[in-house]
Amino acid sequence: MSLQSFQAVNPASGQAFGAEYPENTHEEVRNAISRAASTKTSFAALTLSARSNLLEKIAAEVEQIRPQLVSIAQLETGLPEARINGEISRTIVQLQAFAAMVKTGVQLSATIDLADPDYKPVARPDIRKVNLPIGVVAVFGASNFPFAYSVIGGDSAAALAAGCPVVVKAHPSHPGTSELTYNAVQAALLATGLSADVFSMVQGRRPEITHWIALAPEVAAIGFTGSALVGQLLVELSQTRKVPIPVFAEMGSLNPVFVTKSALAERGTAIGEAIFDSATLGSGQFCTKPGLVFLGGDSDDFVNALRAKMNSVTAQPLLNKGIAERYNNAISELAKVDGVETIVGNLPHLGFVVQPTIFIVDYKTYTSNPEFAHEHFGPTTVVVKCDDADFMEIVSASEGQLTATLHLGSDELLPDLVMKMSSIAGRLILNGAPTGVSVTPAQNHGGPWPSSSTHTTSVGIDAIYRFLRPVAFQGFPDELLPPSLARSNPEGIERTTNGVRGLN
Amino acid sequence: MSLQSFQAVNPASGQAFGAEYPENTHEEVRNAISRAASTKTSFAALTLSARSNLLEKIAAEVEQIRPQLVSIAQLETGLPEARINGEISRTIVQLQAFAAMVKTGVQLSATIDLADPDYKPVARPDIRKVNLPIGVVAVFGASNFPFAYSVIGGDSAAALAAGCPVVVKAHPSHPGTSELTYNAVQAALLATGLSADVFSMVQGRRPEITHWIALAPEVAAIGFTGSALVGQLLVELSQTRKVPIPVFAEMGSLNPVFVTKSALAERGTAIGEAIFDSATLGSGQFCTKPGLVFLGGDSDDFVNALRAKMNSVTAQPLLNKGIAERYNNAISELAKVDGVETIVGNLPHLGFVVQPTIFIVDYKTYTSNPEFAHEHFGPTTVVVKCDDADFMEIVSASEGQLTATLHLGSDELLPDLVMKMSSIAGRLILNGAPTGVSVTPAQNHGGPWPSSSTHTTSVGIDAIYRFLRPVAFQGFPDELLPPSLARSNPEGIERTTNGVRGLN
Repeated sequence: MSLQSFQAVNPASGQAFGAEYPENTHEEVRNAISRAASTKTSFAALTLSARSNLLEKIAAEVEQIRPQLVSIAQLETGLPEARINGEISRTIVQLQAFAAMVKTGVQLSATIDLADPDYKPVARPDIRKVNLPIGVVAVFGASNFPFAYSVIGGDSAAALAAGCPVVVKAHPSHPGTSELTYNAVQAALLATGLSADVFSMVQGRRPEITHWIALAPEVAAIGFTGSALVGQLLVELSQTRKVPIPVFAEMGSLNPVFVTKSALAERGTAIGEAIFDSATLGSGQFCTKPGLVFLGGDSDDFVNALRAKMNSVTAQPLLNKGIAERYNNAISELAKVDGVETIVGNLPHLGFVVQPTIFIVDYKTYTSNPEFAHEHFGPTTVVVKCDDADFMEIVSASEGQLTATLHLGSDELLPDLVMKMSSIAGRLILNGAPTGVSVTPAQNHGGPWPSSSTHTTSVGIDAIYRFLRPVAFQGFPDELLPPSLARSNPEGIERTTNGVRGLN
Repeated sequence: MSLQSFQAVNPASGQAFGAEYPENTHEEVRNAISRAASTKTSFAALTLSARSNLLEKIAAEVEQIRPQLVSIAQLETGLPEARINGEISRTIVQLQAFAAMVKTGVQLSATIDLADPDYKPVARPDIRKVNLPIGVVAVFGASNFPFAYSVIGGDSAAALAAGCPVVVKAHPSHPGTSELTYNAVQAALLATGLSADVFSMVQGRRPEITHWIALAPEVAAIGFTGSALVGQLLVELSQTRKVPIPVFAEMGSLNPVFVTKSALAERGTAIGEAIFDSATLGSGQFCTKPGLVFLGGDSDDFVNALRAKMNSVTAQPLLNKGIAERYNNAISELAKVDGVETIVGNLPHLGFVVQPTIFIVDYKTYTSNPEFAHEHFGPTTVVVKCDDADFMEIVSASEGQLTATLHLGSDELLPDLVMKMSSIAGRLILNGAPTGVSVTPAQNHGGPWPSSSTHTTSVGIDAIYRFLRPVAFQGFPDELLPPSLARSNPEGIERTTNGVRGLN
């Protein structure tokens, strides 16, 4: 039994409120993981349609309690109702997209090479390969996406779609939202006749929980969205295990924006407004927030647009006290740098509300103060006045990024710069803003280290491949093969046989 | 300039011979890597047909010097001519398979989602995703595959096919073979008008070279086939870098074989002969050598077959002095265990020839002496007399394996055991032997830790995906897109547009 408990805190007031949530003990965490592990074989053996049904059913259960989810999430996160509603819809769409994918079997990459005595250089046996689930996946919920990257967000949906039992570490910033969501998943497991142990949740604020989960022998992979500090800790912990495991950590980034001289001349005001909105959207708490903006020419229109926007910005608290404190410390340090200009908001001091702050520096000040190139969660960005000609050098020196954005003049093409940008980021945006991650098959959310720990996406249906591993079966009869590889193809999935795709 | 050099050693005689090869210095290694890095952008931008042509041309150049390769490789490795010829053919087939794949563009996974203002939950922009090369790949040649997993073996071919420049660390057991092969690659680069720096090779015996390569900032990924000791070192080194990189290490395994009581009763002699051949093939120097054989019933026929085979075994030296010494030490330690029975060869002591040695133990002796469950390179295997009923427990306790083999009686089906086996190995073989890795699309060569460091295959065309990373382009015109994503589809590749595959 849990000895300690904690309450949620309302970011709008800074006050704790409501139910007491358990601070799970080491034993409880270990039990949750071993219960999940005990369902590994049976859950992996589920038919594709049964697994698809489960995902659909979870989506339906989440929809069913939408009003309750909206009201508790508003209190726990301080996010506006429209944003929460949109995020619940996105979470449902994600589950449905995986449900649709799972049914087709495409994720299994079933590949069959028939025995061929004349194969060169040597005769080959019958070999059939399929992607199998890797085992129990531990998911760490993110503070900034209480639905889409929390209890039944993208990582959990991808893991269940792959056939992996899930243990979720709920983010302590929204324990009630997490519990309600967990109950929805449990209702779906019950309704589809599956074991409750397929999906476990752990609550708590103590840092040891991260270690307990990352070091549990039954855990086969970790999905994480959050800070570089915790993401890198998870990667390190995974390497100290007897059996190291993959850690799929999306750790955020600065998402640099490059605006050429021509683009500034043509539409400096409009770009300034768009970047202001992107940098302050959701109080600047998105992984894809533009944290660095490089202006390659006359910056007056752009900066004036920022000032005008700052006058009309509305208050929205940060997600929790820790984020607010780290934001305030970072802002006051950066403001002290010689030669920095600031544009600061004037919002009421309520709960975890902070002042949106934009820093404007010249290129020399930027390059001589490396702290400007660190990510700061919250409504802030750094605008660097430089020259188009500096862009290649800036990109070449850049760390890995989730995104990189370029604004060009209408008659301008910079293919070399675009190619260079593609080597540092997972997604490039032309004449737009990096926030707003469309959930579609072509999406890629993940970039070179330190923005992510692997070259995989955590958004979109391709995220499923992180939790699958190929296994080849040589010389087996149908009775001993996974259905996806049996000659009878009982699930009617598309497979590649002797190099040809089809339903055979 | 290199200050030191070394000669090859003929395993048949144990004597050094022939040319002096450079022991490359730190500066030379760094230079080779930065030259490779300097070609990164231009090599990535090559058209698919040009890249495919390069692979075809390399294959042709290797074929051209086959007689010279056979003669030097025989002297340097002690492998028989037929094996060397077969391996050269396999190497050529691998290059051609990648050439064929590259031309189709399938490896790019080009995915296009057209802009859709009505997309739910929110309007979506035009997003196009493609797999791009990750950068310079360092390949460590294996001692036991002087062609197929050496200079232009599977890892190098996969990296070039992906569009990555390659730096190869040649295995010091076959420096002349490596140099000739390297020259063939250089001839192909010259003939196709590409920079010589796309492909560099480093020679040397000193262990520091491994560190220099693994820690070089320009290296983006490592492909390795070899011992667990060096493979795990590479994984550790990669984690100490400022930017950790993926290490694709295939580190070998015990490849357990399970023979049921019924199978032994039906065909104990034939299975014994097949397993003897598999365990001693190439002097037991294959990653997939069966190192542990569990007999679930009467073992007399099986063991008699081993004895008979041992009488006719022919001498083949091990690849180098280190391997021979480690083999002899391991064998003499295992022979000292109480209750162990041995079947030993009686070969002449010439060069690095060792005695094939089979250990036979009961289940209790096996479980109480963990050294029997360690991999030993060379012509040895451990036969454990147990009971069918022990198989589930043995598999459950097993570490990760490249392969696991099951021999069943003709009326027997053990689906639960097969499913459990699929959780510990990358390839399952029914009623066969684990050696002989067919190079086909359905092949999978790689298994759970510690047999491999990641859930990927190092054999077959899917090995290319290890060296690619997805990048999404949002809102770009054709002029700034990689050709594979342009609306005009200039290379005519198959792509997935709004979920539908086709040539559009």
